Amino acid sequence: CYAHSKRERQCTEMLCIFGTGDLGRSLGQRLLQSGYRVVYGSRRPHSCGPLPLGAQVMSHVAAAQSARLIFMCVHREHYAFLETMTPHLKGKVLVDISNNLKKDMYPEANAAYLQRLVPDATVVKGLNTLSAWALQNGLLAGKQVFLCGNSAEAKQAVAEMSTKLGLTVLDKGSLSAARELEDFPLQLFPEWRLPLRVAVGLTAFFFFYLLIRDIIYAYVEQGKDISFRITMALGNKVFPIVSLIMLSLCYLPGVIAAFLQLYRGTKYRRFPDWLDRWMLCRKQMGLIALGFAFLHAIYTFVIPTRYAVRHKLISLVMKNNKTTPFYFDNTEAWAQDSFYMLGILGFFLYVLLGLTSLPSVGGSLSWREFNFIQSKLGHLTLCICTSHGYIYGWNKFLRPSTYKWYTPPGYMLCLIVPSVVLVLKALVLLPCVDRTLTRIRQGWERTQPDEEMVKATNL
Amino acid sequence: CYAHSKRERQCTEMLCIFGTGDLGRSLGQRLLQSGYRVVYGSRRPHSCGPLPLGAQVMSHVAAAQSARLIFMCVHREHYAFLETMTPHLKGKVLVDISNNLKKDMYPEANAAYLQRLVPDATVVKGLNTLSAWALQNGLLAGKQVFLCGNSAEAKQAVAEMSTKLGLTVLDKGSLSAARELEDFPLQLFPEWRLPLRVAVGLTAFFFFYLLIRDIIYAYVEQGKDISFRITMALGNKVFPIVSLIMLSLCYLPGVIAAFLQLYRGTKYRRFPDWLDRWMLCRKQMGLIALGFAFLHAIYTFVIPTRYAVRHKLISLVMKNNKTTPFYFDNTEAWAQDSFYMLGILGFFLYVLLGLTSLPSVGGSLSWREFNFIQSKLGHLTLCICTSHGYIYGWNKFLRPSTYKWYTPPGYMLCLIVPSVVLVLKALVLLPCVDRTLTRIRQGWERTQPDEEMVKATNL
Amino acid sequence: CYAHSKRERQCTEMLCIFGTGDLGRSLGQRLLQSGYRVVYGSRRPHSCGPLPLGAQVMSHVAAAQSARLIFMCVHREHYAFLETMTPHLKGKVLVDISNNLKKDMYPEANAAYLQRLVPDATVVKGLNTLSAWALQNGLLAGKQVFLCGNSAEAKQAVAEMSTKLGLTVLDKGSLSAARELEDFPLQLFPEWRLPLRVAVGLTAFFFFYLLIRDIIYAYVEQGKDISFRITMALGNKVFPIVSLIMLSLCYLPGVIAAFLQLYRGTKYRRFPDWLDRWMLCRKQMGLIALGFAFLHAIYTFVIPTRYAVRHKLISLVMKNNKTTPFYFDNTEAWAQDSFYMLGILGFFLYVLLGLTSLPSVGGSLSWREFNFIQSKLGHLTLCICTSHGYIYGWNKFLRPSTYKWYTPPGYMLCLIVPSVVLVLKALVLLPCVDRTLTRIRQGWERTQPDEEMVKATNL
Repeated sequence: CYAHSKRERQCTEMLCIFGTGDLGRSLGQRLLQSGYRVVYGSRRPHSCGPLPLGAQVMSHVAAAQSARLIFMCVHREHYAFLETMTPHLKGKVLVDISNNLKKDMYPEANAAYLQRLVPDATVVKGLNTLSAWALQNGLLAGKQVFLCGNSAEAKQAVAEMSTKLGLTVLDKGSLSAARELEDFPLQLFPEWRLPLRVAVGLTAFFFFYLLIRDIIYAYVEQGKDISFRITMALGNKVFPIVSLIMLSLCYLPGVIAAFLQLYRGTKYRRFPDWLDRWMLCRKQMGLIALGFAFLHAIYTFVIPTRYAVRHKLISLVMKNNKTTPFYFDNTEAWAQDSFYMLGILGFFLYVLLGLTSLPSVGGSLSWREFNFIQSKLGHLTLCICTSHGYIYGWNKFLRPSTYKWYTPPGYMLCLIVPSVVLVLKALVLLPCVDRTLTRIRQGWERTQPDEEMVKATNL
Repeated sequence: CYAHSKRERQCTEMLCIFGTGDLGRSLGQRLLQSGYRVVYGSRRPHSCGPLPLGAQVMSHVAAAQSARLIFMCVHREHYAFLETMTPHLKGKVLVDISNNLKKDMYPEANAAYLQRLVPDATVVKGLNTLSAWALQNGLLAGKQVFLCGNSAEAKQAVAEMSTKLGLTVLDKGSLSAARELEDFPLQLFPEWRLPLRVAVGLTAFFFFYLLIRDIIYAYVEQGKDISFRITMALGNKVFPIVSLIMLSLCYLPGVIAAFLQLYRGTKYRRFPDWLDRWMLCRKQMGLIALGFAFLHAIYTFVIPTRYAVRHKLISLVMKNNKTTPFYFDNTEAWAQDSFYMLGILGFFLYVLLGLTSLPSVGGSLSWREFNFIQSKLGHLTLCICTSHGYIYGWNKFLRPSTYKWYTPPGYMLCLIVPSVVLVLKALVLLPCVDRTLTRIRQGWERTQPDEEMVKATNL
Repeated sequence: CYAHSKRERQCTEMLCIFGTGDLGRSLGQRLLQSGYRVVYGSRRPHSCGPLPLGAQVMSHVAAAQSARLIFMCVHREHYAFLETMTPHLKGKVLVDISNNLKKDMYPEANAAYLQRLVPDATVVKGLNTLSAWALQNGLLAGKQVFLCGNSAEAKQAVAEMSTKLGLTVLDKGSLSAARELEDFPLQLFPEWRLPLRVAVGLTAFFFFYLLIRDIIYAYVEQGKDISFRITMALGNKVFPIVSLIMLSLCYLPGVIAAFLQLYRGTKYRRFPDWLDRWMLCRKQMGLIALGFAFLHAIYTFVIPTRYAVRHKLISLVMKNNKTTPFYFDNTEAWAQDSFYMLGILGFFLYVLLGLTSLPSVGGSLSWREFNFIQSKLGHLTLCICTSHGYIYGWNKFLRPSTYKWYTPPGYMLCLIVPSVVLVLKALVLLPCVDRTLTRIRQGWERTQPDEEMVKATNL
């Protein structure tokens, strides 16, 4: 039986890799681990450095002959050598996994160029989002890779191989999509782009708004130069404002989606594109909000060591000192302490939310647990942070001096969106609304035509 | 040889999935990745949305005929359609992986209902702790799943399939355990329940204890209203107390276990149930302790910005001001600075312990390293945090004013458990005790009957 | 076809494990998951506790006969029983995966002792860095294991099995390397050793340097006892200094490597050993730097609650109080606030860098993204933290009172290395230098002999 197993091993599919660089070696290692046999094609099969245990090395021609799939782990600039061996590549599937250093370096995509060089082979572009580094670090399971090519059969072969590596394959169509695929790995944090833009926009707006209201107002109306506040005091106003708005923007799309489902009476109609995109970047929005909250916390901790604050304290003492005794205001103490307590609790829950969005922590939770934390705990956090904001302004809302140049202060503006989200969420949680929504999410449809009945049966 | 490999692929086992919803699709994707072939059974095989690459779709009957194992990825409410096809299900293994929305929704378990509907098939309940989300995120390796069913052979087939997916299978017996299995996924954080209860109990006790000693005492005996302290000052006493006690409760069971092993002279007798359960939730206890320590730290950072504190400082200045010069007390400075230093170091180590309990960090350590951090560093943290507590009360232990209404202050109470743990740990570390314990843990037994000798030989 | 699949399963390789302890059971579970069949050899096959589902148990002799590879999961002290069954072990491969409790416990390595006991079998030492714990937690993918043995064929068989488990195998030569392999798992954090030594060295140096300059100087020259500063004030000087130097030591080797590559005109010559070792522990250096920065941050937050600081503030008020009014220094306010702002921003980026070095976060980034964060964001962090240091001393550089006993203050010393790194990095970023370096890193060589041309073609 051992002999049989050996014979069997001899018969597993052989794959060929052209190029013995970092990428070629890591890919070969992975293919061997998934049970394939691997042969490298190299110009100098006898001096090409260390290769994975169990792989063979041959000349390009010999290697190409012993396999049907050939992975091109060679720079595009060196593809030319293939022209000399076109007869040996006839009918082979060439998998182009190359990338470029920047966009539009060459007039045509690498894969298109390869196909032009070897017209008798079938070129499949794909897997190019995998780097040598990702292949070595062993975290492929569940990663999505893209494929494109003109031959469905060739793509199917590459897709099967990728599935065996644990990857999830997405077919992007014909080889004309190669350029698009080659641009993917050049993107930096694509899913962070929208949340970052929102964050930068909000930060810029509130920075200038508060700059005008606080510092320029003081200069124009009272002739005081308090420009030093730009670095710390202004930051400590902008950060919490942006943080709270971003947090509420995390939960707004969920509420909108709920109302849309209630209105439509079904969960089977797709959301509009903008809502889909918004929902996909909620995690990133939340993490940016946490970053701003973190900055706000540290800014607050440092307050009492600041020169301006200590100076104010000392001046206060020296003024008071000559006048009447200094009374203790119990309401003020209650308000301030509650304000701090809510802020601290909110920050604590914020950090908890952030921790569960770490891939390894989130992955160890069940779906119900993850949902509980991100939804229940998330709304609680929003609720606490919003109250933190309300208490901040508790006795200032009606004071006319609050409205300098007839503009509301920043904290009032930042309370609008969270308050709206919380009110809408409260509506959704009303028993009657909640019951209908739960039924819709289980597959029930208000006007359920017999034809769509089938969808509702599946888990 | 390529042809051979193709033929071989044709012969791997075919599995059938009824239902093309989220769960069905994710499960199919996984099965394909593990080398199985997959066929979906659907009411409308031609309009059932995108399915994983490589899977087939047929009518329910056709799909059922081409496989022996059938996964039910359909809501329990729609099981009824199976009645019409019972002849085709004869001898098949139906794997019921369904869950309900809440406990006791139906009089009988889903799996029992399914068996009643299709008496000629063999129903296996199981895998229902896996969600579509977990299946997609690719973190199955090492996860434990449960199975139950009346046929040992059918369970064996499902267990083999699960093992191939990387899961660890636990057999829970006959199909009558189905209800228990269906309740598993409805649990929220089951392993956090005991630690959370302990934490809530301790928090409530110390909150009311300190409320009486501090605020009500001041009101009754001195007529002062310092109720504003409830939000901040009281919290900053309760949190460190609970944190320290919870931390010591992490290390207490380990010491108890050591003494039990010393007393029994063997490691092969099971610990009592309560100790087992306690030891299993040490990680959660430690993380809750870290949470409280985190809150304590932030509460401390915010102290100097609080209204009450600034008021006290100013009042102090104004009083002093008229009297004698203000002397610098070197001992006080030493004591306070050491107090802070120990607190900061303790918190730092606390955070380090918390970081290594992240799955991805812990997983990258060797067993020796993990053990070193959780045991050596853990006890060091406990030691430092306990000294932090002792220094806090260094000059107050003998002062009569400390014992209001003849009760000891909170920090004294919280030092009891950690001190006991540290003393016991010190005893265990004595060379003679340590040597015996090490031998016991390597498998040596004090009264080693020949019969149990075998156990000691295994690694 | 189902029958065929069953027959096939019967024919996969059988592996034997001697010993049914924790390690044996975990290893068996893993082998079963990778598709092997497993048989345990046990003294008492009928009473050896729970074994993984699907494994068989037999007597040692029977188990040994049914497999070619035998894993020894038995304590070295119990190897002796093998002597009685040497005839049955002839030609078998014995894989010794045992470890000892400490170095040099026995005169010869476990594997050498095993080979001496059973001279007719082939002993392969290896896999001993895997613990039962690591095997159970399912994080093997990409882990490196070591092998050694005298038979290349036997090593190849074990290497193939290891590759199937997802491990990466490194051959360490003949069986005489067994002792070295057995010492590996006894190491604690080997890759942290160098960075920790550097950190301890720097901390000790700056501690004593500042002790002399600050506290002893004050005592000798001014007769003041400010020894209480040792715990807090001194720490808060030493920590940021060491943190900044360690951070710059993270980025220094990268710049040195760049200049070396520029000088040599090729990337294909190996770096000197010291540079290699330095580059391999950059991550650990950075994390230690982050730890010190964290301590610095907390020390800073606590400043205003300290007794000495409050005392100073009160004294200041009482002095000022009798004299002229207390002016507000706008420049001072700007300088201090910018100082804090840069510190906070720097710390924020520091934490971000630390987060991306968590295995699970880093693993979810693409190579470009990881590189962007660790290189671009890393240098930005260094730049901001260095400016934080410069602003701290902005108006003290030229003051003679700064140079007590003709020594420069600590913050000046700590600015040297970061400044050098930043200047060198700026040079590397000059367009002309950057262009050459990019070409070199893509494989171009200044004096490219035809012979080495081949290397440049590979990805």
